[in-house]
Amino acid sequence: MTIEDIIRILRKNHWDMYIITHNNAFIGQDVLPQENKLLELCNFSGSAGNLIITQNKSYLLVDGRYTLQAQKEVSHPLVEVICTTDSVGGWLQKNISTPSKIAYNGWCHSIAEVEFWNRTLKQHQFIEDEKNDFNQIVPTSDNNVFEHGIEFAGISSEEKISYLTSFMHTDNLDAFFISEPDAVSWLLNLRSDILPNTPILRAFALINKNAEVKLFTNDFSKIDDELSAYKNKTIGLAFNHTPKSIYSIMKKHKIWVQNHLNPIQQWKSVKNPIELDGFKDCHRQDAIAVCRFLYWLETNWHNQTELSISQKLYEFRSQSPLFKGNSFDTISAFAGNGAIVHYHPTPATDSPLTTDNILLLDSGGQYLNGTTDITRTIAIGNINDSEIINSFTQVLKAHIAAANTIFPANTSGNTIDTISRSQLWQFGKDYQHGTGHGVGYYLNVHEGPFSLSHNRNTAPLEANQITSIEPGYYVENNYGIRIENLYYIAPMNNPDFPLPMLCFVPLTIVPIDKRLINKYLLTKQEICWLNQYHQLVFEQLNQHLPSEIQSWFAEACSPL
Amino acid sequence: MTIEDIIRILRKNHWDMYIITHNNAFIGQDVLPQENKLLELCNFSGSAGNLIITQNKSYLLVDGRYTLQAQKEVSHPLVEVICTTDSVGGWLQKNISTPSKIAYNGWCHSIAEVEFWNRTLKQHQFIEDEKNDFNQIVPTSDNNVFEHGIEFAGISSEEKISYLTSFMHTDNLDAFFISEPDAVSWLLNLRSDILPNTPILRAFALINKNAEVKLFTNDFSKIDDELSAYKNKTIGLAFNHTPKSIYSIMKKHKIWVQNHLNPIQQWKSVKNPIELDGFKDCHRQDAIAVCRFLYWLETNWHNQTELSISQKLYEFRSQSPLFKGNSFDTISAFAGNGAIVHYHPTPATDSPLTTDNILLLDSGGQYLNGTTDITRTIAIGNINDSEIINSFTQVLKAHIAAANTIFPANTSGNTIDTISRSQLWQFGKDYQHGTGHGVGYYLNVHEGPFSLSHNRNTAPLEANQITSIEPGYYVENNYGIRIENLYYIAPMNNPDFPLPMLCFVPLTIVPIDKRLINKYLLTKQEICWLNQYHQLVFEQLNQHLPSEIQSWFAEACSPL
Repeated sequence: MTIEDIIRILRKNHWDMYIITHNNAFIGQDVLPQENKLLELCNFSGSAGNLIITQNKSYLLVDGRYTLQAQKEVSHPLVEVICTTDSVGGWLQKNISTPSKIAYNGWCHSIAEVEFWNRTLKQHQFIEDEKNDFNQIVPTSDNNVFEHGIEFAGISSEEKISYLTSFMHTDNLDAFFISEPDAVSWLLNLRSDILPNTPILRAFALINKNAEVKLFTNDFSKIDDELSAYKNKTIGLAFNHTPKSIYSIMKKHKIWVQNHLNPIQQWKSVKNPIELDGFKDCHRQDAIAVCRFLYWLETNWHNQTELSISQKLYEFRSQSPLFKGNSFDTISAFAGNGAIVHYHPTPATDSPLTTDNILLLDSGGQYLNGTTDITRTIAIGNINDSEIINSFTQVLKAHIAAANTIFPANTSGNTIDTISRSQLWQFGKDYQHGTGHGVGYYLNVHEGPFSLSHNRNTAPLEANQITSIEPGYYVENNYGIRIENLYYIAPMNNPDFPLPMLCFVPLTIVPIDKRLINKYLLTKQEICWLNQYHQLVFEQLNQHLPSEIQSWFAEACSPL
Repeated sequence: MTIEDIIRILRKNHWDMYIITHNNAFIGQDVLPQENKLLELCNFSGSAGNLIITQNKSYLLVDGRYTLQAQKEVSHPLVEVICTTDSVGGWLQKNISTPSKIAYNGWCHSIAEVEFWNRTLKQHQFIEDEKNDFNQIVPTSDNNVFEHGIEFAGISSEEKISYLTSFMHTDNLDAFFISEPDAVSWLLNLRSDILPNTPILRAFALINKNAEVKLFTNDFSKIDDELSAYKNKTIGLAFNHTPKSIYSIMKKHKIWVQNHLNPIQQWKSVKNPIELDGFKDCHRQDAIAVCRFLYWLETNWHNQTELSISQKLYEFRSQSPLFKGNSFDTISAFAGNGAIVHYHPTPATDSPLTTDNILLLDSGGQYLNGTTDITRTIAIGNINDSEIINSFTQVLKAHIAAANTIFPANTSGNTIDTISRSQLWQFGKDYQHGTGHGVGYYLNVHEGPFSLSHNRNTAPLEANQITSIEPGYYVENNYGIRIENLYYIAPMNNPDFPLPMLCFVPLTIVPIDKRLINKYLLTKQEICWLNQYHQLVFEQLNQHLPSEIQSWFAEACSPL
């Protein structure tokens, strides 16, 4: 498929524009290289973007992360790269005033997105192109699918489905259409190996109130057949995650469609006791690997590069029997590379580690009993630069402020974001990303519904949820700092408290590099937190480490 | 007017219900006793509520603040008092399933409220009763209206109107209908003495793009005449503050109606240099009065009551030439009364001050050059109760945390709320009110558009806005604590800061009672804030105080 092919479609149908998005039908999930339409059409390999094709010109809309990359990669003469924070709809509103016929593929855009276009861009006509299918999905075969055993999942699929049927009963729904693959995977205790880092089964599921399950992986035409039985029935689904085509099929069959938050997202975020035990165990395994790596790095960083140390870290993790792979591409970013948001070393950018700067290392593993995600910022050689040391200490203050927060149930995540971020504001600094995210259980390393960020996400925090805390600070061309641990949320159980409160308990147990701390910027309470954290790390991990690294480890965990 | 009169209206028109609300057409503003329909119909004197009258029974919906009061005051046999946090629409949804014809007065409910009913309660029919007028407004005569001179206002009405005409030009509006009296008062530099504490001119204004102004105070029938000239024109107005009747009149005249946030609210919140100087001056005047009062109270509290000391405080304030009256009814609440939200002493509840408890005193003044609002919690006798002292110190920590916050422009108020409130969370405590509010300039003591609270208010904070910071803690039947100062927002101007930041600068300059502080609960930084605050208070005020109180004052301002 080429841009010229799509221009032919426009001419044939007398349409003015065609919107091609990076998404396929699994909206917001990873896309494989061979599924990437923007790569195919204009050579852009980034993980988000939209191409608006008109009969004589095309516009590739990308956000700030991808401006340089898009300008480098895209050389098609018809394509102009546009850097914007606007959505497609927002950009059309500002830039296209002539009333136009605009085509899109209904599988690749959510119901909510198309509703937004129709509501706010009344001068244009949006046309769901049903003839040409630009929804590219590498098929999942039975060989790719496996069960996530009850010894790991903790709760049977039957029991999880019964939560959903109770929910349907309460809300008077005849069925629920689940369009988020991680929710499908959790509900059915199924996983797949089709994506490199994320073991989700890419599928839709239709569950009716009698607990009957229909699963759709490759042949989406079966959805139409199944739905034809639901005339005049009511089906719930989440408009912001479900392809518009599903809505169109339901309307064709005269089904009552109700927009619902998918309740599975909240259930899934609250881990059961087996899952919580799994998270503790896999974090111990992961910490052993990371500590062995840190010890190795201390004497072996000469002659290494960002990529070579990523490989070494992977080897240490691979020695754990339940390890299945990285949970995302390792961000191994030395010096100035650490300031590039979403940097991943490639052979072209791979930098050697030299002396006297810092390494930002953000990595994680998928284990059958959980998922990890840790960032450590590590001194390479001797760091005497007081600016780096002060910034690291300020980021540490931000991390501790969040990790130390005591808060009531149902607080939303922006609260924790504020408490962390405001520590950097004190020094006139800030960071352009969220403070933390939920983490799936052998699923997506980023999962909802809550997030610790300054957006308007109001999903409530609850006991037994898992979140990262990861404030940072970045100076372009110079250095990047981030300190990230995962925590689970637990009740405080303090008899002196008039009200019940929650707090964060560390899952990640890896020392924080004390060589980068200016002790005189920390309060007594902050020093106390750090020393207690390191004591916990030492007690939980020391016995599991090889004897040759124990004296290094004891020093790394010693009080400040 | 009686409930029986309204039942006759229901029968005559074959309607099932009538909604009577506490509001009149100036939605959300103070209502005078003689305008209070709920008082007239069922003897309920509270400042918020709704009465739903059916042919055989009536329901008075009040929120938690007013449950006891309503039960005491209402004895009408047909009226059941219902305590609910639901809106009228929410309550109808849960309690009235039979499809009903429900009448309301279009002047007393906003367009947004009626739209909400129509959208969410499709089984009912809502009828705008145009025959019976339950919109009771005491008329404002020319004698009640006066100009707020340019020496106080700082900017002429003409200039302010030119902001609005530019705005209309940008947004393609032919006119703007302003339904908020404080916005009208600010725009036209007019004030009125019709309300006891708030000098707003209660009026609507229609401003067209040629800067022509039509003002409507009493005779609302003129609105219809004026609007008849706008056929096919576009008028902007704020749906959440404008009576539904205005919308109905506009639709009758085939006017294009656009829902707009009233831009005046944001402009008004950012004080001009003359206003800011006025705020500083009136706070100095106010602090002189409050300090003289505190000195007097220290030796004279025996034989005094909550009401008698309120009167004394008023007398001290009255000695300032620009003082025009209280900005709200003084909350003078001793011991357990301090824990009652919205307590105001009345002859029936008035308590004598006895020894060994604390007084919560929340008061403020209207001055021609600004508005004040201050809460001090004051030891009466010797306080040895460590629980009270620890709670006071914790509230002080919450106050300091907010007052010390450094933050980027356009941060929203919930950020500051979180930073303050989370200090109390640390001790398992919380408070059931916001952390702060904007303050009008010789206008409403509470003004928008921002607020420091955990609601979803996203109005941005900017330099030269004024806000209160007022965390508290309350133990039922025991005591109440609140520490409130007003601050203005100013740029930090710190050359070491990579990013521009804002901070709070105190306007209120009155000592905080050190007898209630447990120094060992405070951090070094907190003690430093308090000592610096007291030094500022001393420097700015000492020279203005009568000599006989200066040694008391020096001690009150001495370092902790």
